[in-house]
Amino acid sequence: MSNTTTLANYLFTRLRQLGVEAVHGVPGDFNLELLDYVAPSGLLWVGNTNELNAGYAADGYSRIKGIGALVTTFGVGELSAINAIAGAYAERAPLVHIVGTPNRATQDARVRVHHTFNDGNFRRFGQMHAHITVAQASLRDPSTSPEDIDRVLQQCILHSRPVYIEVPVDLVAVYVRAANLRTPIRLPDPLVTPATHKALGQIFDRMYAAERPLIFFDGECRALNIHKDVQTLVQATKWPTWTSSYGRGLIDESIPNFQGVYKGAFDTTTVRDSFERADLVLCFGPHWSTTNSYALTAIPKPETSITFTDTEITIGSTVLRDVPARWIVSQLWQQLDPSKLKQYDATSHEHLREKESRSLAFSDVAKDQGIAHDKLWGLFTNFIRPGDIVMGETGTAGYGVREMQTPANVRVFVPVTWLSIGYMLPAAQGAALAQRELRTTVNGNRGAPGWTSGRTILFIGDGSLQMTVQEISTMVRHNLDIIIVILNNDGYTIERAIHGLKEGYNDVARWKYLGAPSFFGADENAFTASARTWGELENILADKKLADGAGLRMVELFMDKEDVPGGPLAALMDTEKQRTESLKAA
Amino acid sequence: MSNTTTLANYLFTRLRQLGVEAVHGVPGDFNLELLDYVAPSGLLWVGNTNELNAGYAADGYSRIKGIGALVTTFGVGELSAINAIAGAYAERAPLVHIVGTPNRATQDARVRVHHTFNDGNFRRFGQMHAHITVAQASLRDPSTSPEDIDRVLQQCILHSRPVYIEVPVDLVAVYVRAANLRTPIRLPDPLVTPATHKALGQIFDRMYAAERPLIFFDGECRALNIHKDVQTLVQATKWPTWTSSYGRGLIDESIPNFQGVYKGAFDTTTVRDSFERADLVLCFGPHWSTTNSYALTAIPKPETSITFTDTEITIGSTVLRDVPARWIVSQLWQQLDPSKLKQYDATSHEHLREKESRSLAFSDVAKDQGIAHDKLWGLFTNFIRPGDIVMGETGTAGYGVREMQTPANVRVFVPVTWLSIGYMLPAAQGAALAQRELRTTVNGNRGAPGWTSGRTILFIGDGSLQMTVQEISTMVRHNLDIIIVILNNDGYTIERAIHGLKEGYNDVARWKYLGAPSFFGADENAFTASARTWGELENILADKKLADGAGLRMVELFMDKEDVPGGPLAALMDTEKQRTESLKAA
Repeated sequence: MSNTTTLANYLFTRLRQLGVEAVHGVPGDFNLELLDYVAPSGLLWVGNTNELNAGYAADGYSRIKGIGALVTTFGVGELSAINAIAGAYAERAPLVHIVGTPNRATQDARVRVHHTFNDGNFRRFGQMHAHITVAQASLRDPSTSPEDIDRVLQQCILHSRPVYIEVPVDLVAVYVRAANLRTPIRLPDPLVTPATHKALGQIFDRMYAAERPLIFFDGECRALNIHKDVQTLVQATKWPTWTSSYGRGLIDESIPNFQGVYKGAFDTTTVRDSFERADLVLCFGPHWSTTNSYALTAIPKPETSITFTDTEITIGSTVLRDVPARWIVSQLWQQLDPSKLKQYDATSHEHLREKESRSLAFSDVAKDQGIAHDKLWGLFTNFIRPGDIVMGETGTAGYGVREMQTPANVRVFVPVTWLSIGYMLPAAQGAALAQRELRTTVNGNRGAPGWTSGRTILFIGDGSLQMTVQEISTMVRHNLDIIIVILNNDGYTIERAIHGLKEGYNDVARWKYLGAPSFFGADENAFTASARTWGELENILADKKLADGAGLRMVELFMDKEDVPGGPLAALMDTEKQRTESLKAA
Repeated sequence: MSNTTTLANYLFTRLRQLGVEAVHGVPGDFNLELLDYVAPSGLLWVGNTNELNAGYAADGYSRIKGIGALVTTFGVGELSAINAIAGAYAERAPLVHIVGTPNRATQDARVRVHHTFNDGNFRRFGQMHAHITVAQASLRDPSTSPEDIDRVLQQCILHSRPVYIEVPVDLVAVYVRAANLRTPIRLPDPLVTPATHKALGQIFDRMYAAERPLIFFDGECRALNIHKDVQTLVQATKWPTWTSSYGRGLIDESIPNFQGVYKGAFDTTTVRDSFERADLVLCFGPHWSTTNSYALTAIPKPETSITFTDTEITIGSTVLRDVPARWIVSQLWQQLDPSKLKQYDATSHEHLREKESRSLAFSDVAKDQGIAHDKLWGLFTNFIRPGDIVMGETGTAGYGVREMQTPANVRVFVPVTWLSIGYMLPAAQGAALAQRELRTTVNGNRGAPGWTSGRTILFIGDGSLQMTVQEISTMVRHNLDIIIVILNNDGYTIERAIHGLKEGYNDVARWKYLGAPSFFGADENAFTASARTWGELENILADKKLADGAGLRMVELFMDKEDVPGGPLAALMDTEKQRTESLKAA
């Protein structure tokens, strides 16, 4: 390895070492020189249709690959992407936002260059990004740029949150020291102290004493990289195990003691009681946003919980700071003595959810009946295969998917906290690309075997699809294997449930959705189909061109504009229908 | 008028009083209650397909109507729109960004509600907006909200820049005092002091002494609302008058002494000499960004200039602060004694540009020759009519349009400073809607007569169109009269000219662009046509269904991927071609 390399090559080599194989983004005048180094660094340039979509796609990619990257241009490009970066911050997607900026001389001379406010201030966009990223670097000095880059990238993977790197045009090809490249960027070793050991002891004491224990894991387990350890512990303890929407798919959901999503106030009395009566809840990677916690009702009682977050462990009301969750959780299964656990057979446990009830067969439904949420998700259950990525966009689709039963090794994307409508379509592009990379690299002895045969399946409403529809063209351009199921319910049904049931502002324009593959340049043979009844849907799902085909496939389901899945949305819809009726009566 | 009204009605009534007739935006859970008041306040709800597009559209609307508004939802919606707000800030579009936020109790309790970072901090998005707006209000208290709203709206029209108003859900229907509504929001009266009169005297002295005077006006004349005064002065003095791209269309360009766009280093020696030799340049509303000033070469010499900006007048090296341009410029023509001006017949002046050379007839070109920039803009000149709005998106289209000759009362949108690719398509939606409103209100004794018969004509490249394409559906939904001319040059040609002539990152996917009207729900009879040669283009432009039709019409022109208009882009392309050749040789 040479002693020096260009700054651009240094940066892209670091990304490759961390697992990035494709860079999302849009070309712009201040990043073109940077893009010259993408392909030579062995990276695929995706080339999205706009920057917000690029950000969403890189987010989807990062949640599968563990890291993602996008390149935008100064001002216009980076601000177009900023909502995607904010979403990655909120939901802990490790994303590297690289911005090509004007050369240093232009910045230093405060030239009134385009993409500025004509006021010589080049720092505003960086300041805006500081709100939504965990680390930033405005590269200025080649003698320290490698360390700047390394620091920022380490923070990205440590916190599983976006970071921001500004690269002035004139620094792109400048040579920097390459020595660091010999050592991959690593997370800091866990800082294990006597206090850590003491904490571990306390946790085991509680575990061995527990008579009615539960495990609850949440989506931040992915960010903490403890989901595999949690799975091992779930299997070792055999304790009843629940998750949130955000935690869906992070462990093998076919494990017998895995129960499903805990829905708090929206769950059955039996299930709620089991949480009430538990004398210990091991709570891993919690993320208590209102959406993810069923309006804060699915949060286990603090007094019986031991909660594991990135730097803290909370035992009841005691907060133990700076205890490394990653180390502790790995020790929980490594040092566990199962014989000391109270006898506790979860498979026969009273509050085991009736899993079978969530899967339905088409023989259970009338063929000529219209498609509706009550049975849709049960009927789709059998369509899902191990290795699939299943995505439900914010809206009725996401609320349906989050409680859908899935086999092992299925990754699930559903509304968690950011809930930016439009996110999921580009995220599907990114996720499918990441899935293909993992499939490919498996043959080169790398990657995750579970995903080798999987498809990316996106459920999305018509209103959401409109927001970012052009990313279908990127799916086509890169020949990605994606099934898009459009729930065409004639507008923003989730908004109708919240407020404005019959209001025109919740309408959207009526498009010819199935014309999308053709309009965006797909092969004329791309699979498309639409259904209004269960019978029509049955035929579509039985078609091998859909289930086993390649490339983009689209299915449009026509649904009633006031139909929503059970749970919180149904409750909202009921309230809004009552309000609307009472307005009419008044 | 009642003594009280709801806060929402107060806000929307204020917008109506200022000339807003349509509100752009996207529904979202925290703004739905607010949207209940849009139609009852007499405003049209546009309902865009996403928030960035809504922001762009409201910007386009505001540049025609003098003010525009958009409503988004907290976090996800407002951040999606933020690049559009930034563009409005950079190019002085008076835009009111209204954000529906969580109710005050939720904010005060720091609830981990969706659309946040799950950290109880509700202020980040407002802080980000502070960088790109001239005034902000986070409404909290109904007793002061009317004054908060008034203050912010006044700043919007005073600076012709965006402002930001947060409305918590629970304040929407709260009653506020309505008394202020009796008095429309007005700009502060000009603060005329003895210093102002002294400045006016100095300016007249210079004007009467000038032997080789020029007038240069720029796009900020719109923001300063002095363009009509400037036009009167141009006609009164008969001095040779130049503008920038940004100033295009602000005065009647058929005035005999109007010369065109001053192109600095890219202009003829004769024209450059006339600026060199001028002993006085009255310089109104300058905006010296690199793009608008031909890389800073079209800035008149400070030592012979008198420059009028919002609060300052600069005479040579003397800065007179706090002199109201609006008042001063109105006095310049009102108090002018033309007999004191030196004899100076601009129409026979040596450096009068040969205007005729910019207009071409189809008889001048070979029918079977491919369409190219060198003649395209001259040939389109005859297609433009008084009252049209002509828009050239950043890219080769914008560089073509900015030097295209236009008749009286044509408003021109071209790349100025922000240059956010994707802007111009939604902006065309907004501008066309504003144009229709002005046409309508003319019959109600209001509006601008010049625009009664006009069409909105957008020239846009394929790469740009892809960014925001779904806004075509909003054009269709509101049945707007828009002609879209797509320059299909197979990628980002402006980027190819800057860097990466042959690089794949400057390619875009190939779409079936003329399928757009059908895909987005237009009438199957919507006019579409494509051309590769001058003969084909001639036939299309002669078709009355295009020129005199209604609704959306689309024309696709196939052009060479390396073809650019003359001027700066041609210079860049030459340099990049040389660089590419030398790389190949190396």
